[in-house]
Amino acid sequence: MSVRFERCVVVGTGLIGASLAAAGRRAGALAHVVGVGRKRPNLDRALELGLVDSVSQELGPALSGADLVVVATPVLTVAPILEQVAAATSPDCLVTDAGSVKAPICLAAERAGLGRRFVGAHPMAGSADTGSAAADIDLFKDRITVITPGPDSDPSAVARIRELWEVVGSSVVELDAGVHDAVVAVTSHLPQMMVFALCAMAPRGRDEDVVRRLVGQGFRDTTRLGTSDARMWLDIADLNREALAAAMAEFASLWDDMRAAVEAGDEARLRAVMESSRDFKASLGK
Amino acid sequence: MSVRFERCVVVGTGLIGASLAAAGRRAGALAHVVGVGRKRPNLDRALELGLVDSVSQELGPALSGADLVVVATPVLTVAPILEQVAAATSPDCLVTDAGSVKAPICLAAERAGLGRRFVGAHPMAGSADTGSAAADIDLFKDRITVITPGPDSDPSAVARIRELWEVVGSSVVELDAGVHDAVVAVTSHLPQMMVFALCAMAPRGRDEDVVRRLVGQGFRDTTRLGTSDARMWLDIADLNREALAAAMAEFASLWDDMRAAVEAGDEARLRAVMESSRDFKASLGK
Repeated sequence: MSVRFERCVVVGTGLIGASLAAAGRRAGALAHVVGVGRKRPNLDRALELGLVDSVSQELGPALSGADLVVVATPVLTVAPILEQVAAATSPDCLVTDAGSVKAPICLAAERAGLGRRFVGAHPMAGSADTGSAAADIDLFKDRITVITPGPDSDPSAVARIRELWEVVGSSVVELDAGVHDAVVAVTSHLPQMMVFALCAMAPRGRDEDVVRRLVGQGFRDTTRLGTSDARMWLDIADLNREALAAAMAEFASLWDDMRAAVEAGDEARLRAVMESSRDFKASLGK
Repeated sequence: MSVRFERCVVVGTGLIGASLAAAGRRAGALAHVVGVGRKRPNLDRALELGLVDSVSQELGPALSGADLVVVATPVLTVAPILEQVAAATSPDCLVTDAGSVKAPICLAAERAGLGRRFVGAHPMAGSADTGSAAADIDLFKDRITVITPGPDSDPSAVARIRELWEVVGSSVVELDAGVHDAVVAVTSHLPQMMVFALCAMAPRGRDEDVVRRLVGQGFRDTTRLGTSDARMWLDIADLNREALAAAMAEFASLWDDMRAAVEAGDEARLRAVMESSRDFKASLGK
């Protein structure tokens, strides 16, 4: 029998929450979805678009009778919401989230007493667009979702949360929350900081018009993330501070080596970096 | 009357040279194009594809009677070729190039005695593909070509070389060679080094399989240049050493600031970088 929840409360009907609601309903895994959010127009839009079955601006009443809660709000707000969820749901209700930093959120779930029935998740799908209007029923298709069970997570909870993220189309990878955070610091948070730095530096102290004219396709592609939301990334940098700072220090060290090699005309050292780059990038496929 | 050359010798029938030959012939600006290169199969392909009118593996004889020479070979080979061109062409023959570093090439042209009739050029068009088989008659369309006249460049030579790059579809920007090199160090060479560093670092000392699974669309887009040709970039780093090292040092300094801000949880400093990034990136348009 495939996974099925009778009353799913999605807290945060932004891109991720609304897309999961729509995809889960289509797959038959979510019988009734309640969308909870602060902004009335965004909730109304989710209802109009048929992404959710009902909406509420108040979390407490919405949680009554829920057998699944998905917290898909900005990462810094997840912990306090988990406390409310712990207080207002029955012991049979499973809880998951969609935050891109996992260890602090999993710790918050344990502290809230949700350890057994909480399984953290990070669907690696995003878009420049936000809000329920940007929802995409196929958002998770062919994407990775990382789940990070804690030491107390019930095995059947882990299996059901895994299945939820699978039925909406993603491939599920199970990882320790700390490992997840250290790796995404490198694969996601580091590139974002690099792009912010590059775009901030490019015009600084130079003739901005000339700089703009000499921006080619390479710069454009490399900096696709240059307009990413500051609020979201400040929160991620805050929540994953240690791992991000470590990744940035590691990058700084390699960068210093490369700069010294450029200055010294040390072709062998530069070539080694370029070849490592090519090997890894090529291994990613298209 | 539009620009027209009766016998154009394109030295290096790679992507840029072969595309220019094809586009210049179509526009009626190049009456007869001789493709010169070292590799017979590449020359044969250019002839088969109708990109050039004739081909030669020997530069000297091909130059006889030329009224335009376009040097579109790897940047480190341009200077010695310019010496040969100076010795074997008439004083009426104009000379241009397509190198992505300009000051050393323009200096080489002056030293070779070509100062009056040489106008350096950098068509900002490229592709991951190489060789005449990758030629694209529309490669320069809607792209910028920078031309860098020297102090001795004849104004009519400048006008005709400008027109050549315009008739193949590019917008021409005239810049001092040193300014060009300093700006492309930031807009082109710096992002390339960043991408090499990121892709080289990502798997290092980590479980490579986990890293690969946690690579999302952001990393993929940011690192499109990760497999760029090492030989070409080693040459560019060598030829534009001073400007690239300066740009890398400037980046390192901003990066240190950002890292300190992450460590200290200094939101205001990070936000300022993110907002500068957004402003510049947004100003580039689509």
